[in-house]
Amino acid sequence: MEKRIITISREFGSGGRTIGKLVAEHLNIKCYDAELIQKLAVQSGFDESYIKEAGEYAPGGFLASAFTDRSFGPTNEDRLWKMQYQIIRDLAEKEPCVIVGRCADYILRDRADCLRGFIHADMKFRADRIVRVYGERENSPEARLKEKDKRRAAYYRFYTDMKWGDAANYHIALDSGVIGIEKCAEIIESLV
Amino acid sequence: MEKRIITISREFGSGGRTIGKLVAEHLNIKCYDAELIQKLAVQSGFDESYIKEAGEYAPGGFLASAFTDRSFGPTNEDRLWKMQYQIIRDLAEKEPCVIVGRCADYILRDRADCLRGFIHADMKFRADRIVRVYGERENSPEARLKEKDKRRAAYYRFYTDMKWGDAANYHIALDSGVIGIEKCAEIIESLV
Repeated sequence: MEKRIITISREFGSGGRTIGKLVAEHLNIKCYDAELIQKLAVQSGFDESYIKEAGEYAPGGFLASAFTDRSFGPTNEDRLWKMQYQIIRDLAEKEPCVIVGRCADYILRDRADCLRGFIHADMKFRADRIVRVYGERENSPEARLKEKDKRRAAYYRFYTDMKWGDAANYHIALDSGVIGIEKCAEIIESLV
Repeated sequence: MEKRIITISREFGSGGRTIGKLVAEHLNIKCYDAELIQKLAVQSGFDESYIKEAGEYAPGGFLASAFTDRSFGPTNEDRLWKMQYQIIRDLAEKEPCVIVGRCADYILRDRADCLRGFIHADMKFRADRIVRVYGERENSPEARLKEKDKRRAAYYRFYTDMKWGDAANYHIALDSGVIGIEKCAEIIESLV
């Protein structure tokens, strides 16, 4: 079946978001990343302060509350997850697009028109890149990458019950450090 | 660095060997698969009856002896592994080539001129394919696939101490069922 939706999961610093944007640009479709999806959540009435507390990006946020006792009801993460889930389902229904992160591969796994990609790279490539692109100035970008990887893997595992980065979950997985960001985008485009 | 060696790991029935052969044919280089490497082992003086006993393919062979007490010295698998290790190192030294299976990705992991690929596909695609291509006539090709997957994963884990099928171990991982065997070969060729 022809693919009209592309999901891109990625290790932090691997350039997955840039690849998603390039693909979308070349195919003349929209690219939704975490930031944009959270904006849509706010527009749909989700309290912005919840988003700041919850989600993968809040310091201590997700890991702290993933293992929280849920017997008092859903946490902020759970509410945000549900909202994001619906937004991503709606986006895929509406029009061809690229969706970066947010477990979109899992959320859309029943759609035969969805191509699932994963972008990764070794520590050195990613550390150099976050210093260069994001101007990260920490003493150890490697420690920051490891923490981010751990967070994403835990988030993914918790909400999908699957292993993040397992080749079998994706139609295509690419090492952007070896293959190059432009070439990764080109390969993915050629599959749509 | 330019790649001159391509290793292809693959799930049984995914068409990884066919992809390796196509890539080699189009690039006009040799393709070595398990059978060919075992022939080279015999030529190098390794007893053929050992190979039949050992290796991934013998019924009960590898899994039975992987957990054998090694205090009496190396098993047949260990001897075969050592022999294959040397053969693969020598092949990579000698000339550009494709090597399918045999943990070649791990054995050549220190070579910057080696591109590591992984080919997988879902159960249905592989089951249909082994019935069609290999004429497998068993009642449950799925059960056979699961056993083969388990064997390969255990073999890989035992000798490499890494997880088979982890996207991070490969530069490129492709779902041949979704992408198609010809297209997988074309993508891999374009990286060399």
